Amino acid sequence: MPLAGPVEQLVDLLARLPGIGRRTARRLVFYLLDADPDYCSSLGKTIASLRERVRPCSVCGNVTEVDPCSICREPSREKHRICVVTSAADLLAVDGAGTFRGHYHVLGGVLAPLDGVGPEELRIDSLLRRVDQGGIIEVILATPPSVEGEATATYLAEMLKTKVERITRIASGVPHGGELDSFDPVTLGRALDGRREMGS
Amino acid sequence: MPLAGPVEQLVDLLARLPGIGRRTARRLVFYLLDADPDYCSSLGKTIASLRERVRPCSVCGNVTEVDPCSICREPSREKHRICVVTSAADLLAVDGAGTFRGHYHVLGGVLAPLDGVGPEELRIDSLLRRVDQGGIIEVILATPPSVEGEATATYLAEMLKTKVERITRIASGVPHGGELDSFDPVTLGRALDGRREMGS
Repeated sequence: MPLAGPVEQLVDLLARLPGIGRRTARRLVFYLLDADPDYCSSLGKTIASLRERVRPCSVCGNVTEVDPCSICREPSREKHRICVVTSAADLLAVDGAGTFRGHYHVLGGVLAPLDGVGPEELRIDSLLRRVDQGGIIEVILATPPSVEGEATATYLAEMLKTKVERITRIASGVPHGGELDSFDPVTLGRALDGRREMGS
Repeated sequence: MPLAGPVEQLVDLLARLPGIGRRTARRLVFYLLDADPDYCSSLGKTIASLRERVRPCSVCGNVTEVDPCSICREPSREKHRICVVTSAADLLAVDGAGTFRGHYHVLGGVLAPLDGVGPEELRIDSLLRRVDQGGIIEVILATPPSVEGEATATYLAEMLKTKVERITRIASGVPHGGELDSFDPVTLGRALDGRREMGS
């Protein structure tokens, strides 16, 4: 049976979202057809206007309505530490942990030469300019612990080594609450390599 | 960190969709922030206009842009058989199987007295009127094989018994490709009760 045009069209559009297949997309459309029409309309309008209302912060690359973003404007944050993350989503995750109250820099991806992502495709120049302005005592490299994330961290460390006193990398190991036997050898190897004295 | 207003607002809206938690909602929003702006805009507009462009078919209750729907208008379909389903989504699933080429009737739910869903809340009156117009030789009850779905089928069978020659219920049993040991006793019991002679 051919579905009604707008239904089929919306299934196609939703199925392009990550983690949403055609089956889930169809379920969502049927949910929307039954839902409160006001909800349906405000969901649609918010999505449609998202890209006009939100932009990258000109300082750190975080997503924001007001430029610079609220983190860059917050006076109580440590101005001399920058945590480098891959995406605004990662910024949010790291900041949500609550242990770091400095500034951030969003790269917009990781180095992936095979996919055509070189240093020029990332916000590396603006990071170096921020550091060149002086006053930065530590850059924390919080790219993901993947092959590309490690390569990006290594590249950044090389670029920054003459400019910043302290360049650190987030720890990699077994996550909180993890069962040891459910992790891969690389994770377990890193957990062992990164071991610390008890009580330290 | 407070997220940008429209981002937080969209996370809230998306998290109301079935099967989508705040974590997934946030991932979707960050995906949209990086996606093609045209995609983002057409997804939003399609959702916002969905409820204006699509309505229930006045004959069968299926979702449609044009009333009556394409199934009700299709001349090659068997007019004298009606398959009763709970939702337009179920209609789509049943019709997609390709073995039934008759007409449908969408109830809009199942009887659930504890949730305040009685016969008046469902499209039962319009089903009875369709049958009363004559020419229907079979009504197939394709409500789900749940307690409420069975109760709804039983209720409909009672209402229809003087009006239609043949009232049938879809088979319930072990689904195609299913491992026997992964199903519950009710499903296995039904599979046994509904057994048929080999070769029939």
